[in-house]
Amino acid sequence: MTLSNLNTDALRARRERLAGKLGGAPALLMAGAPRPRNYPATTYPFRASSHFLYLTGVAIPNAALLLDGAEATIFAAPHTAADELWDGPSPGPAALAEATGCAVEPLDALPARVAGLEAATLPAVDLPTRVTQKKLLGRALDALAPRDEALADAMIALRLVHDDAALAELRAAAEGTTAAHLAGMRASRPGVREHVVRAAMEHAAMERGMAMAYTPIVTVHGEVLHNNVYHHELAAGDLLLADVGAESEGGWAGDVTRTWPVSGAFSPTQRAIYDVVLASQRAAIDAVRPGVRYRDVHLAAARGLTVGLVELGILSGDVDELVADGVHALFFPHGVGHLLGLDVHDMEDLGDRAGYAPGRRRSAQFGLSYLRLDRDLVERMAVTIEPGFYQVPAILGDEARTAVAGDRLDRATLAKFADVRGIRIEDDIVVTADGADVLTAAIPKTAAAVEEACA
Amino acid sequence: MTLSNLNTDALRARRERLAGKLGGAPALLMAGAPRPRNYPATTYPFRASSHFLYLTGVAIPNAALLLDGAEATIFAAPHTAADELWDGPSPGPAALAEATGCAVEPLDALPARVAGLEAATLPAVDLPTRVTQKKLLGRALDALAPRDEALADAMIALRLVHDDAALAELRAAAEGTTAAHLAGMRASRPGVREHVVRAAMEHAAMERGMAMAYTPIVTVHGEVLHNNVYHHELAAGDLLLADVGAESEGGWAGDVTRTWPVSGAFSPTQRAIYDVVLASQRAAIDAVRPGVRYRDVHLAAARGLTVGLVELGILSGDVDELVADGVHALFFPHGVGHLLGLDVHDMEDLGDRAGYAPGRRRSAQFGLSYLRLDRDLVERMAVTIEPGFYQVPAILGDEARTAVAGDRLDRATLAKFADVRGIRIEDDIVVTADGADVLTAAIPKTAAAVEEACA
Repeated sequence: MTLSNLNTDALRARRERLAGKLGGAPALLMAGAPRPRNYPATTYPFRASSHFLYLTGVAIPNAALLLDGAEATIFAAPHTAADELWDGPSPGPAALAEATGCAVEPLDALPARVAGLEAATLPAVDLPTRVTQKKLLGRALDALAPRDEALADAMIALRLVHDDAALAELRAAAEGTTAAHLAGMRASRPGVREHVVRAAMEHAAMERGMAMAYTPIVTVHGEVLHNNVYHHELAAGDLLLADVGAESEGGWAGDVTRTWPVSGAFSPTQRAIYDVVLASQRAAIDAVRPGVRYRDVHLAAARGLTVGLVELGILSGDVDELVADGVHALFFPHGVGHLLGLDVHDMEDLGDRAGYAPGRRRSAQFGLSYLRLDRDLVERMAVTIEPGFYQVPAILGDEARTAVAGDRLDRATLAKFADVRGIRIEDDIVVTADGADVLTAAIPKTAAAVEEACA
Repeated sequence: MTLSNLNTDALRARRERLAGKLGGAPALLMAGAPRPRNYPATTYPFRASSHFLYLTGVAIPNAALLLDGAEATIFAAPHTAADELWDGPSPGPAALAEATGCAVEPLDALPARVAGLEAATLPAVDLPTRVTQKKLLGRALDALAPRDEALADAMIALRLVHDDAALAELRAAAEGTTAAHLAGMRASRPGVREHVVRAAMEHAAMERGMAMAYTPIVTVHGEVLHNNVYHHELAAGDLLLADVGAESEGGWAGDVTRTWPVSGAFSPTQRAIYDVVLASQRAAIDAVRPGVRYRDVHLAAARGLTVGLVELGILSGDVDELVADGVHALFFPHGVGHLLGLDVHDMEDLGDRAGYAPGRRRSAQFGLSYLRLDRDLVERMAVTIEPGFYQVPAILGDEARTAVAGDRLDRATLAKFADVRGIRIEDDIVVTADGADVLTAAIPKTAAAVEEACA
């Protein structure tokens, strides 16, 4: 993000709304420190804290934003003569102030400025910055103080409902994500390693100036849900599952999964399960509208999946009972999605405080317990919708786990679908006044469209 | 790196040599913790500590290696049933033990095992792991204890001289680096952003299963030495400077710079300076052989550059005097290179203890003060050779800085070379019995070869 791309008015409006919610109480938000890789001078690409980015738009290592009533001040290390020599000219504090709408002061003025201020804060994700915060504020950050909780709730209230500038960033991330998936479909062919497909997908985002919003999953073993290795060779009968999202230059996330046939054509059994997952995803998207509880969107996906599995003869019995018992979770053990924003699981640094409405708690039932979001949907909220079907040996081979199905699981029929290890279909959705806007609708999704894109 | 690719004999031999140097004294080496990005569950791709990798070959988050006399034990968190569900099957401790040649124990057995052991250690680069180390060893790590210094010196002695397994990894990294540079030359054309070239280069490494050894520099502003932005548009008259190195799957670094014309053809002035930098680099490579002091390799490059600049009329006067006065450093302010190994600046976590022979210190002279290596070369040592020519405004516009040149700098002649902002040429070298083996010799380097590769 260069300074000239910042939406100064949107940033100012966010800060003003936050200050209003805080009743003018002071708050300190840290950008965070670069993370060292091999040694201190080789760092991972710096990515500022999402709260800091939300309010300033700029990724400045070690900077801090102090909100104090109507005043917003960025504290940042000045560009020295040595920096100029090695890092080139800097736009300077005046340009930074103009682009962000904040005052700008040198970082070393911060300790005196916050001393005795009783500012709220949110603990940084990186430990060195948390140590700095503790020193600055003169207190431990092991648990949120009441003023920190008020800040957390104010940030959540803002970031749950995306403004136009946020939606523009999410659309940009969706465009990069779309390009990545199209490139991945084109790059897949028998005999290459997963690395080749992953590289094609990251390339499409990177040539647009975008990073990855999270570590990609690109695998012929879709049944391994958190699969971050890429050394398997693609074979003709495999399905490739790609869960890959680009991050816009401003730091906003895309998060999409597609599953496609390495050979360019689904087998009849793969196609049958694919269509079941797609119907499940469509049922969930159709359920999205303001006022709907997200857990019911999850259950709509579960019901859609179960209807299909009963039709295929893999499950039998009453669909509502199967879903109530959580039998579908033997094949679909995760939640149907989560909040999306600057973070791919938006505001997960605040735990379930962001994802769960006050008074709501995680279910104890296997499957539902992994649902990351249980709020009533509101207009301009962004979520993912991502049901799946997986044959996970650690689940289906565990008799205690599968006992819930009783005789409603037909293993002989299931065995006919052995060439389906894992399928997931995921899109990025914004809640509209009367339903859902699918930001990632340009990515091929029907079985026929996917086959065409792979050809 | 999969377990089946490990060179068990080489790893065992390294541990035995280290134990020998330590006289059997115990040592604890930590793999390090994954670094969080947005929130704890989104981490950057994990890269284990180089010391741990050198002795075990495996990148296991939060693991530790305990060397105690002839015993080598890896302590690693066991794979739980929940891990199996989400992360898939694991090879298990027996397979890990067989592949590495180490005993394997659960991580939670480590505290009792090291209690009272007085083990040496090297402080991890990430703060959470340093906190763990401090707890395990019951002592602060602000400064190395004498036993830690002995461990550091033993590691340095081993890692300075690459065994066959290390050289094979460096060659693999050089192959990935070669592919990246060829792809970058092909991708460059007027009108695209630097991002496009960077993406093509990273793609070439990633499709081979390789990461980047460091954050790439891919820029039309080569005069900004630490340039990590990629948003400039390439114009026909620009030179593109790419300092990009692949990291082998085992974690070993490549580090190469090439500078090429965006249009596919150097201008006469660009060509003239390019040939001067190339002659400087060749003079430095020609100086490499066992027993030669690396600072003299640096000075050979400085002399080669100065000869060329005098021939072009940019500088005048006696070449030896110009070099002794550091006048060349106005255009070539950095060192000619550094150690190369598992780290791109190998063992820089140990500071100048690794790069500088005992009793040697950094020069105070501008330019020479940035030299990262001043040891006598020995066979099987790997280094980079990377002279450059830059017109850095913060240097050439600083009268105090340029005063050293007096009337020996001809600014009128220099002005004719305004279309050269920065050129660097860098290769990876292994010291052989009678000279130097250029690992990256397959990357086009003469002006004619570079032009052909860009066409």
